[in-house]
Amino acid sequence: MSNNPFFKNNGPFKLSKLINTSSEDILISDIKDLKDATDKDITFFHSVKYKELAKSTKAIACITKESLTKYLPSKCIKISNENVILLAAKITEKFYPDSITDNNNYDLKPIEEDFKNVTAGKNTLVGSNVKIGSNTMIGHNTVIEKNVNIGKNCFIGSNVILRNTFLENNVHVLDGAIVGKKGFGFIPNKSNNYRYPHIGYVLIKKNSEIGSCSTIDRGSLSITVIGENTYLDNQVHIAHNVKIGNNCIIAGQVGIAGSAILGDSVMIGGQAGISGHLKIGNNVQIGGGSGVIKNIPDNTKVMGYPATEIRNFLKEKSKWQMQ
Amino acid sequence: MSNNPFFKNNGPFKLSKLINTSSEDILISDIKDLKDATDKDITFFHSVKYKELAKSTKAIACITKESLTKYLPSKCIKISNENVILLAAKITEKFYPDSITDNNNYDLKPIEEDFKNVTAGKNTLVGSNVKIGSNTMIGHNTVIEKNVNIGKNCFIGSNVILRNTFLENNVHVLDGAIVGKKGFGFIPNKSNNYRYPHIGYVLIKKNSEIGSCSTIDRGSLSITVIGENTYLDNQVHIAHNVKIGNNCIIAGQVGIAGSAILGDSVMIGGQAGISGHLKIGNNVQIGGGSGVIKNIPDNTKVMGYPATEIRNFLKEKSKWQMQ
Amino acid sequence: MSNNPFFKNNGPFKLSKLINTSSEDILISDIKDLKDATDKDITFFHSVKYKELAKSTKAIACITKESLTKYLPSKCIKISNENVILLAAKITEKFYPDSITDNNNYDLKPIEEDFKNVTAGKNTLVGSNVKIGSNTMIGHNTVIEKNVNIGKNCFIGSNVILRNTFLENNVHVLDGAIVGKKGFGFIPNKSNNYRYPHIGYVLIKKNSEIGSCSTIDRGSLSITVIGENTYLDNQVHIAHNVKIGNNCIIAGQVGIAGSAILGDSVMIGGQAGISGHLKIGNNVQIGGGSGVIKNIPDNTKVMGYPATEIRNFLKEKSKWQMQ
Repeated sequence: MSNNPFFKNNGPFKLSKLINTSSEDILISDIKDLKDATDKDITFFHSVKYKELAKSTKAIACITKESLTKYLPSKCIKISNENVILLAAKITEKFYPDSITDNNNYDLKPIEEDFKNVTAGKNTLVGSNVKIGSNTMIGHNTVIEKNVNIGKNCFIGSNVILRNTFLENNVHVLDGAIVGKKGFGFIPNKSNNYRYPHIGYVLIKKNSEIGSCSTIDRGSLSITVIGENTYLDNQVHIAHNVKIGNNCIIAGQVGIAGSAILGDSVMIGGQAGISGHLKIGNNVQIGGGSGVIKNIPDNTKVMGYPATEIRNFLKEKSKWQMQ
Repeated sequence: MSNNPFFKNNGPFKLSKLINTSSEDILISDIKDLKDATDKDITFFHSVKYKELAKSTKAIACITKESLTKYLPSKCIKISNENVILLAAKITEKFYPDSITDNNNYDLKPIEEDFKNVTAGKNTLVGSNVKIGSNTMIGHNTVIEKNVNIGKNCFIGSNVILRNTFLENNVHVLDGAIVGKKGFGFIPNKSNNYRYPHIGYVLIKKNSEIGSCSTIDRGSLSITVIGENTYLDNQVHIAHNVKIGNNCIIAGQVGIAGSAILGDSVMIGGQAGISGHLKIGNNVQIGGGSGVIKNIPDNTKVMGYPATEIRNFLKEKSKWQMQ
Repeated sequence: MSNNPFFKNNGPFKLSKLINTSSEDILISDIKDLKDATDKDITFFHSVKYKELAKSTKAIACITKESLTKYLPSKCIKISNENVILLAAKITEKFYPDSITDNNNYDLKPIEEDFKNVTAGKNTLVGSNVKIGSNTMIGHNTVIEKNVNIGKNCFIGSNVILRNTFLENNVHVLDGAIVGKKGFGFIPNKSNNYRYPHIGYVLIKKNSEIGSCSTIDRGSLSITVIGENTYLDNQVHIAHNVKIGNNCIIAGQVGIAGSAILGDSVMIGGQAGISGHLKIGNNVQIGGGSGVIKNIPDNTKVMGYPATEIRNFLKEKSKWQMQ
């Protein structure tokens, strides 16, 4: 996530400042995942299923369990800890202290004052450094927080909240949608859960539409993406880190759990749910009300709970759009 | 939809202006469906299942597929096109150019100024030509757009949005509900979907209640109707063109897809879904969480996904209301 | 519900004023359920399944069916009526006339004026007698109605509505959540349903979080409770009188019907539903999309619709939080 304007990195920090038990004075620039970390970054490795990524990580230091240290390159400084995710969260918080909650902006101003070629309604507020392209229209009582970037020819309804979000050109966000808040990520703890930092943002690509009262959470360590020309109906929930391809059609009240990845031209009927971390291929069709709990290959039609392949389930593509 | 105050008809147009390939100079007043079209209107006919309606249509012209022209009356001018729906959408847009999106009103005013015998909260805005009956109470931050008509003794909560909507007397619309926005209707297109016009509106009949964060979309070519004394709980989604009868009880998080028609005294448990274009009879009871994918006759109790008839599923009607 | 600051008891009333057919002049202080009623209160008894509670009630009078009078103590004045719930509702309304609808507050003021050590955004409004603890942060366009009590170090988002609600310390309520409105409770009636009074409130205990666009309804005769350190994701619906224990994790779009009681450390996957009046034990895990229609004992994992026990359904607790 280079070019992330939403969360300022407070680093670099000396490793000894990040990890009490370390006496190393080397400077650490950032915390990244195993794949993206450079030789100036710290990373974390908590499950054997990522051992191949671990073997080739370039990170200068890695938080991991004692039993996993053997998979890491020899030059990588191993920091053993039995609660890898918790320690990674705490270090992420040191780099990005504003990423834990949604931190309401308190310097919002009425939109009328600054934007040319933008039409906006009453009581609509914008934060500092917001950019809005020409011919964009915005409704009433809408809140657009700092650094949000809105393209040209966009349509934003009333009572919308946008934080930590990029909208490309010609994106529609309908009344009451809430985009870019922190995701539902935390480490359970008996008396007081530990909230996981969310340093990602939401990217909604051109020509897409987000329905009323839909919620799209920003990513924790990566971006949440809605592809080009993808349409979401009302009351859809998209969790953190989800990536949806182009030309998808997602009907009302669908829920997509965290880190799921959808291909292009995926069609999802109303009230269907997709579990976290799944991969849904291109041209997949998921029947209304289905519960998807495993990966689905390209060009497959599924239905049911748990969802399984069916033939001829959707006879007429048209009924999804024109009913 | 005579007496539709929400979308102004820009016609009449000469047929040759609507259809490039036509040289006819006759005036066309409006576009209507096969059944409602008069001898001044154009209509469209895209599926053989409507052939009986086609045979008796009074429309002066009809967009249809070459293979379907034989069903139309001889005096009806046939306009052959392989993409009937797309061409009908484009012609509808010529008559009603404001019906494609939700077109925020920009001449809203604080409600305090104009209404007598209406009590309203802070920051609540109304558009031009809004009518509100006496003894109606309205909350805060609510947006009521142009031409909306609200009856007497209504209760409107805070953060509500009403567009293109008629509320009869004694209707309650609770906090955060969004009523009258365009439906989820479009013609898929690889790089940029074509939004279908929505020239309908929402009619909520007397003594009904709409729960918090519920969404009720306006119709495309027809009206979306909530019958008398029908109660919707929170987070219910009603899609475009749906018609719900009187005395229905619809629990939380239910979704009803486009153009479904429900009879009177229908009871629907929480999170149930009804597919598009279905007919649900009078006195039907649908168990919570059910997925209804076919028509249901009167006086039937169904449950499951897909929903099937069950006996004695709902032992006590009272548990729906008093739990 | 002693110490309920939200609904003022207009009593006491002479019994003859509450019940037309009674000539008794004794004073009745309040209406309470069979268990909580004192010898100054009236109660109601409508189903034989509560006969044990009826036998030991201390109420001075009880509305009941003729056939149930035999279970009541001899000194309890029996008021026979075939529609026990309707008469109880009407008497509750006499004691608490403001509890039938949500009665928008019309004396709200901008929050800036009164609160020290509280940071609040634009257009945020508070009613009379609202209390907010120090270091609490509140967003924009939020409505906090009279008598609401918010603890220290709370985080309240934008477009939030709080009525009839207690928040303990360190509670987070995210953008667009609606807490404390009346529940979906009424007595069906052919032309005009009779709304049941809701004299309860919502209590959200310390360290909890309520997701965006979630709705939590206040209780009818009891309280709706969210336990300590319990987290709700977006678009969750909690109906009236529900009681949720401590350390629970409830994923997006879950719905919990009225009067359900959940133990501690319950985990519920996305889109699951729980029927009304059920008891869910401690440490229960409910798979995403499940429909729970019967009680679940402690330490049980269930999945499906209807939900049944499964083994090893949730292999990794972590995937609920970190996906």
